[in-house]
Amino acid sequence: MQFTVSSIGKVVREDGYHVLAVDEEYRGGLSGLQGFSHMIVVWWAHLYAQDEYRQIKVLDSPYTYGPGKIGVFATRSPVRPNPLGISVVQIDAVDPDTGVVKTPYIDAEQGTPILDIKPYHPSEDRIREVAVPEWCEDWPKWMEDSEDFDWEKVFNF
Amino acid sequence: MQFTVSSIGKVVREDGYHVLAVDEEYRGGLSGLQGFSHMIVVWWAHLYAQDEYRQIKVLDSPYTYGPGKIGVFATRSPVRPNPLGISVVQIDAVDPDTGVVKTPYIDAEQGTPILDIKPYHPSEDRIREVAVPEWCEDWPKWMEDSEDFDWEKVFNF
Repeated sequence: MQFTVSSIGKVVREDGYHVLAVDEEYRGGLSGLQGFSHMIVVWWAHLYAQDEYRQIKVLDSPYTYGPGKIGVFATRSPVRPNPLGISVVQIDAVDPDTGVVKTPYIDAEQGTPILDIKPYHPSEDRIREVAVPEWCEDWPKWMEDSEDFDWEKVFNF
Repeated sequence: MQFTVSSIGKVVREDGYHVLAVDEEYRGGLSGLQGFSHMIVVWWAHLYAQDEYRQIKVLDSPYTYGPGKIGVFATRSPVRPNPLGISVVQIDAVDPDTGVVKTPYIDAEQGTPILDIKPYHPSEDRIREVAVPEWCEDWPKWMEDSEDFDWEKVFNF
């Protein structure tokens, strides 16, 4: 089965902060988002949306210490059957009138189409007892600690 | 801009547990998912995929103590421009050969099309300092505590 999704806005990377620029017709949907400290952004990984990427099921591992081959559903790679990205990001400001949602950082490229925005609810999204495979056990245990982590030693890029 | 997504499987609710039944052509993508305790499932809210729902930007609040009106991007309602659901769920078992991924519970209906599966990484998805609006401040602070919470007093259903 196939379904159609529409872009509701795009990622704009400015000096010093990142912005979700929400299209005019969708701005009413932002009311009430202020008050949440974090949101979940669903985006379209447009740089990896070609069929040649979407047919890939197993990747040469992008992780230095990971398994040599890894299924796409065990990674956060943008290479996957549906090039959907999910980012949990901090909310700095929400302006429903202009459609501008400011965040310190989102790991999506300039111009990335945005498909959805959801509030981050601890009751649904925050796991107390979480386990990961041995090869990523030394990664940060909290999103806040990721900024200072040496990701270059973890990824093969 | 519009994009096309494909179902990679569906939700099957059995007695005592829930299952993601992944279609044969996508099963290779599951290798390596075992070892993670939790995953993020992206699903298509097929019961709310009609145009009449997708045009709605502001809802009468589904929350008993919430604001009277609330933008769809400030809710986790399946009513939204792109009917994408996101659930963080526990992984009980992964079988790449049969495409069966077992979980104790997922808040998606029987037969819900699945679009993507991603590993839950604390370094990306787990927020230490999280704030929510006053009207949902007494909700659980952890997903594990949600099972025993009295959700009926929170929702207007």
